[in-house]
Amino acid sequence: MARNILFSAPDHLWDDYKDALTQAFEQAGLRADLSRDHDPAVVDYIIYAPNAALTDFTPFTRCKAVLSLWAGVETIVTNDTLSQPLARLVDPGLTQGMVEWVVGHTLRHHLGMDTHIHGQDGIWRDHVPPLARDRPVTILGLGALGAACGQALANLGFPVTGWSRGVKTVEGITCLHGSAGLNQALTDAEILILLLPLTPLTHDLINAERIAHLANGGFVINPGRGALIDDGALRAALDSGRIAHATLDVFRHEPLPADHPFWAHPKVTVTPHIASQTRPSSAANVIAQNIARCENGQPMKNLVNRKRGY
Amino acid sequence: MARNILFSAPDHLWDDYKDALTQAFEQAGLRADLSRDHDPAVVDYIIYAPNAALTDFTPFTRCKAVLSLWAGVETIVTNDTLSQPLARLVDPGLTQGMVEWVVGHTLRHHLGMDTHIHGQDGIWRDHVPPLARDRPVTILGLGALGAACGQALANLGFPVTGWSRGVKTVEGITCLHGSAGLNQALTDAEILILLLPLTPLTHDLINAERIAHLANGGFVINPGRGALIDDGALRAALDSGRIAHATLDVFRHEPLPADHPFWAHPKVTVTPHIASQTRPSSAANVIAQNIARCENGQPMKNLVNRKRGY
Repeated sequence: MARNILFSAPDHLWDDYKDALTQAFEQAGLRADLSRDHDPAVVDYIIYAPNAALTDFTPFTRCKAVLSLWAGVETIVTNDTLSQPLARLVDPGLTQGMVEWVVGHTLRHHLGMDTHIHGQDGIWRDHVPPLARDRPVTILGLGALGAACGQALANLGFPVTGWSRGVKTVEGITCLHGSAGLNQALTDAEILILLLPLTPLTHDLINAERIAHLANGGFVINPGRGALIDDGALRAALDSGRIAHATLDVFRHEPLPADHPFWAHPKVTVTPHIASQTRPSSAANVIAQNIARCENGQPMKNLVNRKRGY
Repeated sequence: MARNILFSAPDHLWDDYKDALTQAFEQAGLRADLSRDHDPAVVDYIIYAPNAALTDFTPFTRCKAVLSLWAGVETIVTNDTLSQPLARLVDPGLTQGMVEWVVGHTLRHHLGMDTHIHGQDGIWRDHVPPLARDRPVTILGLGALGAACGQALANLGFPVTGWSRGVKTVEGITCLHGSAGLNQALTDAEILILLLPLTPLTHDLINAERIAHLANGGFVINPGRGALIDDGALRAALDSGRIAHATLDVFRHEPLPADHPFWAHPKVTVTPHIASQTRPSSAANVIAQNIARCENGQPMKNLVNRKRGY
């Protein structure tokens, strides 16, 4: 019997995902009836984007799992009507895209590229940056994304320190954890990269006190979540020169309003939440394979721990 | 007995290298008398920068070898008075710096960073680039620099094709060679990186005909030698939109004159020959170890083949 799969996400995602999911279900050997209009009582699985209209999961009494189209699930875990297992999207294409964006912007700041991109004025500014091996980089968050970015940067020669709440081990990276480890990880970091999940514990984590640990004239790169940073503290540190530049891909409100001071700030580069965009073909396969695991009685991958929040 | 080593290079290099070389000779177990003023008849080795005042090597009758401070030796190999063995500088620090610059600018163009760096105007331009695996990169030149850059880009997921005059094999890269291989290597490349030595065979290699093989809207990155490119052909291809952007680190005349059209061209980024700058501490060790090899009767490393030109 075909499984009833509800696709609950904004219209443009339906256009992107309809064919990709149908193909992925076939490849995974699943008989699936994919629709945006199933009766809640007959739905077996929900594929869900946090900005969907659906917010009450109570009527989905038969539903075995909700599969998020996003890696970040902070807006879903707080939904009290959700009693079903929730899986985050961990998509290899998404990790790859993040690695490219993070390595690119880290090298941009490391090499001082903006000086040349902006300075095409005939002046030969032949200052040579240090080698990567003399540029300490710290990554907060050692999930799939943080670990992959850290390893790619370590492969290029950067000394990389990674931090996570619990103990983790990632080859080629100095791994620290817990409260004491956090201050140590921040101390003298010249480039700070934020790839933590957003939880009550990480909200406004990068405040004035923690920024004060970074190397003078360091850089902040945030492709994680906007609310990881206390925006006022960051702006103060940029204005004082304590931080040289911030490249931000995520914000408390997206799209970032056109009159937000980050756009006009000469030491801030805004990028429009593009660091890690889900690519439908790759994401559809991950979702289909996870549903197939559940159908075959195997534990689903990337299930969210509600208490922890990710 | 101490060896007499002549340092023949502009004044600022003497300041950079004096202490680094003295230290490196000690570490290599060499007794050396390093000076800028040895009598030519007693000189055992010459450490040489191509922009030095010395151009007549005839009086250096006892000299066992000339060690270049530069990787590119095209201005020395044509000096008919030079009968002594000539070693290029192949410095691991220099290779590392080149890898960082090449990977950084490749990712910059791949990710379309300039759109965001220039476009901080409140418009949310959330176009997502393809993944690296869908962006073919071609590197011309598979010496130490080209091979290292190619492997670093392949590690990040780019499909990399490399080309050299003779047959070479580099892991992770599709290696082509010879005239037929050149056209194949250029065909449909979206990012072209030039790391060839400058020889009569590579002079103006990238001309209108060869540019026509590249993917429409591709990018050219030149950290090799300025004269590898026919400048007029490149400008025509940029003006027509055939090539989207060129990032150039090397030029026929350096520093590039302030009134040169490359500075003002909106599709050209000039960087001031910084892609691969020799770092004295690292280069001094390489030179001292090469002299020690010669003293110990071992073949010197990186000797230049005069006929081939590199």
